[in-house]
Amino acid sequence: MNKQWKLKARPVGEPTRENWEFEENDIPTIKAGEMLVKVLYVSLDPAMRGWLNDAKSYIEPVQIGAVMRAGTVGQVIDSQLDGFSKGDFVVGYDGVQQYSVSNGKGVHKVDPKLAPLSYYLGVLGMPGMTGYFGLIKSGEPKSGETVVISGAAGAVGGLVGQIAKIKGCRVVGIAGGKDKCQFLIDELGFDAAIDYKNENVKQALKQACPDGVDVFFDNVGGEILDDVLTRINFKARIVICGAISQYNNTTPVKGPSNYLSLLVNRARMEGIVVFDNIKEYPTAMQEIGGWIQSGQMKVKEHVVDGIETFPETLMMLFKGENFGKLILKVGDAE
Amino acid sequence: MNKQWKLKARPVGEPTRENWEFEENDIPTIKAGEMLVKVLYVSLDPAMRGWLNDAKSYIEPVQIGAVMRAGTVGQVIDSQLDGFSKGDFVVGYDGVQQYSVSNGKGVHKVDPKLAPLSYYLGVLGMPGMTGYFGLIKSGEPKSGETVVISGAAGAVGGLVGQIAKIKGCRVVGIAGGKDKCQFLIDELGFDAAIDYKNENVKQALKQACPDGVDVFFDNVGGEILDDVLTRINFKARIVICGAISQYNNTTPVKGPSNYLSLLVNRARMEGIVVFDNIKEYPTAMQEIGGWIQSGQMKVKEHVVDGIETFPETLMMLFKGENFGKLILKVGDAE
Repeated sequence: MNKQWKLKARPVGEPTRENWEFEENDIPTIKAGEMLVKVLYVSLDPAMRGWLNDAKSYIEPVQIGAVMRAGTVGQVIDSQLDGFSKGDFVVGYDGVQQYSVSNGKGVHKVDPKLAPLSYYLGVLGMPGMTGYFGLIKSGEPKSGETVVISGAAGAVGGLVGQIAKIKGCRVVGIAGGKDKCQFLIDELGFDAAIDYKNENVKQALKQACPDGVDVFFDNVGGEILDDVLTRINFKARIVICGAISQYNNTTPVKGPSNYLSLLVNRARMEGIVVFDNIKEYPTAMQEIGGWIQSGQMKVKEHVVDGIETFPETLMMLFKGENFGKLILKVGDAE
Repeated sequence: MNKQWKLKARPVGEPTRENWEFEENDIPTIKAGEMLVKVLYVSLDPAMRGWLNDAKSYIEPVQIGAVMRAGTVGQVIDSQLDGFSKGDFVVGYDGVQQYSVSNGKGVHKVDPKLAPLSYYLGVLGMPGMTGYFGLIKSGEPKSGETVVISGAAGAVGGLVGQIAKIKGCRVVGIAGGKDKCQFLIDELGFDAAIDYKNENVKQALKQACPDGVDVFFDNVGGEILDDVLTRINFKARIVICGAISQYNNTTPVKGPSNYLSLLVNRARMEGIVVFDNIKEYPTAMQEIGGWIQSGQMKVKEHVVDGIETFPETLMMLFKGENFGKLILKVGDAE
């Protein structure tokens, strides 16, 4: 049988089990030009919350009754599609289900010998590409500058901070809880970490960023964005990668009250979406892969087992309960 | 005697007559290395409100008890300073007073034959440079794109729209009242105008910008910024020149709730301050001067006579009562 999670009703505020429909259907059959993929790992990302809204965005909303969209790593178990053979491992958007029929569009083969399969959903996947291109192209960090990252212990944040360190920057992470903050410093080599759950972020930024903030890579929005805006330098760059603090709002998004700091400091705030860099993914993957091999980059994953847990596991992102890249394991390779 | 307006107390909200001290003092005398300037025209600009706050900004706050800072055009009536002679006309920051002693720092001679003297406070002065460099360097308008301007009938807005027209853009102005909107279309050649006092801006933008918004030059902030954010295109540029709707707030500034449109559209929002381009002013003045001479650019001024009216005349900016560049006339050339 094929266990699937479908969107039942669009959430207002936090998505709960009531917004989802769990189904067990027959494993689908394929025809010419298709392949059957067994899903092994499902990527859970903050962006998924946006896909649930019926609003114009950078990607179509997930339709009511459709299998929830998600990035996946899977294994081909049957193929009538040129270029894909039984046993191949593939990354794609096969959704929150155990088996998927694919025509190969947007699907790439990956080599399990080069990296653990789950890495293709994290550091070598969408979060990795998001952080890499967002920091380098939009953040434009220069050696000696101070880079601040919110959601620093998440999939994107941890990578961004490590790249900024490689680029010679002072790196300050904002994360929730002592363990995460300690991890950023001890394991990922950040220069400082701010525990937003137990510290006054505005005050802590003063201490952690004695020379101000040149680049802010924001995954969180809300009060943290406003706090950082009070500390930015002349010609600072703010990369808007996300605003997880605002995604489940039932009231309007909190806009940054301190945005006029952009004017005072001739700074810019720029939004990024990973898909714009798709042609350059191979370059980024090669460079990140090199950093991992040389030990300059560490990878932290948070794997939860069992497709049945999907609604609650997804919510871990919004509660700040994941520690590293959140992944739902739904099957084993054959 | 020398009539002067000094800052008596920092305003909370709108500056009123109680925030100012009117004095009549002796006309000062000069010593070696100084000149005495008779002030003819005083520039009144939204940015002046920011100078009254005791807050870190791009320029020092005006001190309590000091003559109010303001851009001026004046005439040298006595000089012991090399390079300046009696009768010379000068632009500088001589403040809201009739006579000023200057050491020549930041002062430039201007030629009354090349342009009316008041133009050096507007189209050839700080507002002109603000609009010119803000639009060209930060807005980067391309022929065929749609440029929207708030505060479009003000000193900066009117110039920005006309430059955008010269650059081949579709230009839409947002202004308060039918007269201003009609003026933008009939006199300045805008393609469309939106009367924010009598129209639903969000709806009106849909009609006025059928191809979306590529550049937004914002002088106003608040709801209008949020409305425009709903209509921006992929890779749009938002130039934050000011936020006059927020300057007299006693509550926190309204941050743009729709700022995540920057993410969806990979757009940027950038702050500008005119002084960064000071070395390039001559180039801009020459180009703008050429457009005025060729009739491609029209100049609208709103001159109020009498230094005594300063507190109320300044408030016209915040009530949207000025129509064109607001200037206080305080004296006649000798």
